Amino acid sequence: MKKIKVAVLGATGMVGQRFISLLEGHPFFELTDIAASERSAGKRYGDAASWYLESGMPESMQDRVVSEIDPKVIDADIVFSALPSDVAMDVEPAFARAGFTVASNASAYRDEADVPLLIPEINPEHLGLLEVQRRNRGWDGAIITNPNCTSIVLTLSLKPLYDSFGIDRLFVTSMQALSGAGYSGVSAMSIIDNVIPYIGGEEEKVESESHKILGSFDDGAIKDAEFKISASCNRVFTSDGHLESVFIDLSEKPSVDEVEDAFKSFGGLPQKLGLPTAPKPPIVLRSESDRPQPRFDRMAGAGMAISVGRVRKDSIFDIKYSVLGHNTIRGAAGASILNAELFAREKL
Amino acid sequence: MKKIKVAVLGATGMVGQRFISLLEGHPFFELTDIAASERSAGKRYGDAASWYLESGMPESMQDRVVSEIDPKVIDADIVFSALPSDVAMDVEPAFARAGFTVASNASAYRDEADVPLLIPEINPEHLGLLEVQRRNRGWDGAIITNPNCTSIVLTLSLKPLYDSFGIDRLFVTSMQALSGAGYSGVSAMSIIDNVIPYIGGEEEKVESESHKILGSFDDGAIKDAEFKISASCNRVFTSDGHLESVFIDLSEKPSVDEVEDAFKSFGGLPQKLGLPTAPKPPIVLRSESDRPQPRFDRMAGAGMAISVGRVRKDSIFDIKYSVLGHNTIRGAAGASILNAELFAREKL
Amino acid sequence: MKKIKVAVLGATGMVGQRFISLLEGHPFFELTDIAASERSAGKRYGDAASWYLESGMPESMQDRVVSEIDPKVIDADIVFSALPSDVAMDVEPAFARAGFTVASNASAYRDEADVPLLIPEINPEHLGLLEVQRRNRGWDGAIITNPNCTSIVLTLSLKPLYDSFGIDRLFVTSMQALSGAGYSGVSAMSIIDNVIPYIGGEEEKVESESHKILGSFDDGAIKDAEFKISASCNRVFTSDGHLESVFIDLSEKPSVDEVEDAFKSFGGLPQKLGLPTAPKPPIVLRSESDRPQPRFDRMAGAGMAISVGRVRKDSIFDIKYSVLGHNTIRGAAGASILNAELFAREKL
Amino acid sequence: MKKIKVAVLGATGMVGQRFISLLEGHPFFELTDIAASERSAGKRYGDAASWYLESGMPESMQDRVVSEIDPKVIDADIVFSALPSDVAMDVEPAFARAGFTVASNASAYRDEADVPLLIPEINPEHLGLLEVQRRNRGWDGAIITNPNCTSIVLTLSLKPLYDSFGIDRLFVTSMQALSGAGYSGVSAMSIIDNVIPYIGGEEEKVESESHKILGSFDDGAIKDAEFKISASCNRVFTSDGHLESVFIDLSEKPSVDEVEDAFKSFGGLPQKLGLPTAPKPPIVLRSESDRPQPRFDRMAGAGMAISVGRVRKDSIFDIKYSVLGHNTIRGAAGASILNAELFAREKL
Repeated sequence: MKKIKVAVLGATGMVGQRFISLLEGHPFFELTDIAASERSAGKRYGDAASWYLESGMPESMQDRVVSEIDPKVIDADIVFSALPSDVAMDVEPAFARAGFTVASNASAYRDEADVPLLIPEINPEHLGLLEVQRRNRGWDGAIITNPNCTSIVLTLSLKPLYDSFGIDRLFVTSMQALSGAGYSGVSAMSIIDNVIPYIGGEEEKVESESHKILGSFDDGAIKDAEFKISASCNRVFTSDGHLESVFIDLSEKPSVDEVEDAFKSFGGLPQKLGLPTAPKPPIVLRSESDRPQPRFDRMAGAGMAISVGRVRKDSIFDIKYSVLGHNTIRGAAGASILNAELFAREKL
Repeated sequence: MKKIKVAVLGATGMVGQRFISLLEGHPFFELTDIAASERSAGKRYGDAASWYLESGMPESMQDRVVSEIDPKVIDADIVFSALPSDVAMDVEPAFARAGFTVASNASAYRDEADVPLLIPEINPEHLGLLEVQRRNRGWDGAIITNPNCTSIVLTLSLKPLYDSFGIDRLFVTSMQALSGAGYSGVSAMSIIDNVIPYIGGEEEKVESESHKILGSFDDGAIKDAEFKISASCNRVFTSDGHLESVFIDLSEKPSVDEVEDAFKSFGGLPQKLGLPTAPKPPIVLRSESDRPQPRFDRMAGAGMAISVGRVRKDSIFDIKYSVLGHNTIRGAAGASILNAELFAREKL
Repeated sequence: MKKIKVAVLGATGMVGQRFISLLEGHPFFELTDIAASERSAGKRYGDAASWYLESGMPESMQDRVVSEIDPKVIDADIVFSALPSDVAMDVEPAFARAGFTVASNASAYRDEADVPLLIPEINPEHLGLLEVQRRNRGWDGAIITNPNCTSIVLTLSLKPLYDSFGIDRLFVTSMQALSGAGYSGVSAMSIIDNVIPYIGGEEEKVESESHKILGSFDDGAIKDAEFKISASCNRVFTSDGHLESVFIDLSEKPSVDEVEDAFKSFGGLPQKLGLPTAPKPPIVLRSESDRPQPRFDRMAGAGMAISVGRVRKDSIFDIKYSVLGHNTIRGAAGASILNAELFAREKL
Repeated sequence: MKKIKVAVLGATGMVGQRFISLLEGHPFFELTDIAASERSAGKRYGDAASWYLESGMPESMQDRVVSEIDPKVIDADIVFSALPSDVAMDVEPAFARAGFTVASNASAYRDEADVPLLIPEINPEHLGLLEVQRRNRGWDGAIITNPNCTSIVLTLSLKPLYDSFGIDRLFVTSMQALSGAGYSGVSAMSIIDNVIPYIGGEEEKVESESHKILGSFDDGAIKDAEFKISASCNRVFTSDGHLESVFIDLSEKPSVDEVEDAFKSFGGLPQKLGLPTAPKPPIVLRSESDRPQPRFDRMAGAGMAISVGRVRKDSIFDIKYSVLGHNTIRGAAGASILNAELFAREKL
């Protein structure tokens, strides 16, 4: 198969770097352009980007020249957007209008009725919205978004429960990693020997996105899933890996074993299609009493699998458990890439 | 008032040190004896104890000689027990039988029907159990326990809600400090860049103790409070200060303002009596969006007040909020001392 | 004694907050004005400042109104400067010209030949420069600076060795706390599970300031001390407290005991005069094998004493030891206040 | 080439796990036995070992049965020793006597005159001691040791300087990772917001081992190198990666460029032979002002290369620089494996 040309918009930030790292040697995609803000455009990438990942900047990227974020200068079919939301608001439609498919990690268009909030293991049929989107907006291209990092980790664990038992309501308390705020988002002085029980806008995103993600695609529109959800979000001193404590009330009343079986046997379309970035299995079920833990489990499935553990009976609702996922791989850049892989494979 | 003689059992550990530090210059109590295990008995305290508190060992303690843990050699009316639970199991009754009042931080006797699980702001009337206890067991002395650190912080926040609105059920997710596991309880390698979503026995303690603490004393017995509670406990990288996210369903349906008023106006018997260790107010209500935080709020009220913040409407239950308290002061040594102050003042 | 009116310039930053905290109830000084940049001027201090210290903002400060940084609006005799160096460059002379004595923590004027780089325990006679400074510059007021935080901690340990044995040369490797970079100076993502072996300009400051600090005041000028010094500076994950490993070659060849005696018996003019902020003793000598440590020793002498430990023979030079001091108290705000106390007492 | 049978002694600890991880799929070696103390012997490895590495326990190891540490039951030619030093003292000679070649990370025999303290890039000719050792001790097998982790990182950086310019003396201050003390060696409470300026026995090891490592093998004996060295060792809050600040006096007076060239062009016998674990290059020279850093540079060369940076003129000695290496790979298990690779290749 001839490789599809892709570009990364916002290539110098932390999520942009994850995109570049994950696209290195990708079997479907060829990274033809990297674009960033005016401050960086025209520079060597090695000079423009302070590299934040432990793996080191790929040698081949050092001398690549950073482009402007402009549809006229980008040579690609798919563009990955790691742009800040306020920039994405204007830039992403411009690219879609110019015929690009935008696989976006930004929150700007996630809530639009005709924009898919895609997680290929959960709602691949939501890609059907693209036809509606193009018709509505008169675009040749399209925007596909992935959810917020905390929402992705959570809803991947909800999907098998939703399908097998139905979900009535759930509470989730998150303990989120520093990288979720961007490389400079949390100062060391504010978090040393500390936890910050607040992340601006996060609880609202988790609550609203979950309904759309698990919703059904019917007659050209998403019908939100109908459970209730409430979130409490905290920032803790970990580099990567969001950990979430979940209390959940299911429609049916399965045993702990049945719930664990649902997690273990879960797989979705990306696994069936063998998409390159699809983790096998997407959910790792831990049997130890004290797992999942961010440092030890975030890289499960090369950072694309979530890990679930401590599944146990709850005295109020049916079940409680802990779930963990890598927030900048499964929760950001990897999510967009998997979306683009599905899109490419489905030849939409 | 002539000072009451007190001793500390288990004086070399971290909670023992908190006792010593808090008893320095205490207006009611005179520390006449410090006792520890055979390994330490007979040594200078300055040699026997590795001092763990940032404030430094009080000069006056350096040359004190450590006693054996034996009722025959201890000269005191009240003994504070910072013993491990398995040691407390045998030692505490021996002291009670010998006429001492044992104010214990150990968990060994917390669940006994005739042993008060005392928090003076919440259930001072539970001291009435002592008469029952003495009759049952034929002791001249008595055992008074304080709850687990996580339970204390939680139930102090529950009390005003329980009294004003009634509690139907609640979920709590804790993010607990390292000191709760003892000075050597958590290795640095296990917690660096990590969260551990498990603390052995903790969830069970929080769930069971809460009902007894908020129970009523009636006809010589505690009648458990009748709400439902479920906990999920996590260890995070903080030195002191347990933070808890609470989702709560109240019998009445108060507004956020009414709930905040209940927190703000809360006070109990220790505040009325002006007990030396009683914080004024016992609950500090924070109005910032991102408080309480362990590093900044754990020392509220000299470590004896809890801090509540982020009180907000919940989409499933009525209210959600965050609460924080110092786990080795309010949650351990300070709790026992306040218990002993109430006991001494009530001249039981 | 009637209190002297003082103001704090740059009152909203972390060092500014230390000034405010340390001036609370000060016996010599009355805080009449607090000033900050245009963004804050005119606001309530409680609204203008995000309070960073664990002790909490003094109640009395909440409603104070923040002034502009302008000599015409400030009502004070002494102004403490916590300004960034580039702002201090213009502002401090303007205040000195207008008749204020500026006790500055900024680096802007530290290297000027007629500006004292004052540490009252080391070089109180350097205040004699003020006469020269006023004559040179035609000012009614004056500028008095304190050294860089790392330099202060180091030179306080050097002074007794310099006086008793002479110093030929020394190497120092620092492990510096986060607060030295300002509250937002180091991002959590850059320092988690990490050490940064570089602090811009720090090594040069330590090397150059030390000579001036230990220099003699003779004939209206400072004659630099004549030892050699080389520094290597590192940022580690501590909140406060700079730790430094020193290897030192002395002119005389004292025993370890003699060196320890020199540390222990050290005292200076502030101790003799009983200045309010002077620690007694200024150097705490630790005998344990593993001290000083930042968390346990930074608050020695209310944060104004340095702690020295691990004094031992060196196989190349004579002696090696570790020294620690609180970088934002002894190394910044407390240093300026002690300078002002000496100035006030000496009625210059 | 037929694979050589190897075993790991002390297979359940952190260094033992590194051995197992690095031997997975090794081209020279086949892991035939894993042995550990009585407590673990006879159990499945998956049950006996709490796995500490982020990469997860290799699937193939889960069901392996742990052997006793007894030459009679071990089927291997080479045994890797990750034993505690006091156990190694008796066990290693027993294995050597029984004909095994022991590649040891323990310190028990490092100082023996007839035992090589081998770093293949530095002193491959020290393997000549084996003949002496066998003759002296009447063993069929042999003991080959690798140095202490801090010494390995340091001396790898010293070797090119020693060869090109001669070394007169040096000072080194280390900032060492937690894993160097074993998984449970440092409690989280002792190191949170802290640095510990002491590691028992470490400074002595660094000082004594360096002379032997850089010594010459002549006439059947090692002649120690003749420079002077002094160390100051500190424990900081990093998981892996020892960082060291070095001040060095060279015999010749090279420029910074010449020193950097010496680092860059350095290579040794393992690189020439293409040994599987040999990093290419062994020294990574960083040109950024703030590198090397533990989190970003410890995995250079798959954890086997050291990283050097901040090479600059020194005002007292000639040169100062920072050096970093992974303490449990290059500084422990990887070091022993490289030693065994050299031994196997040289067919001694």
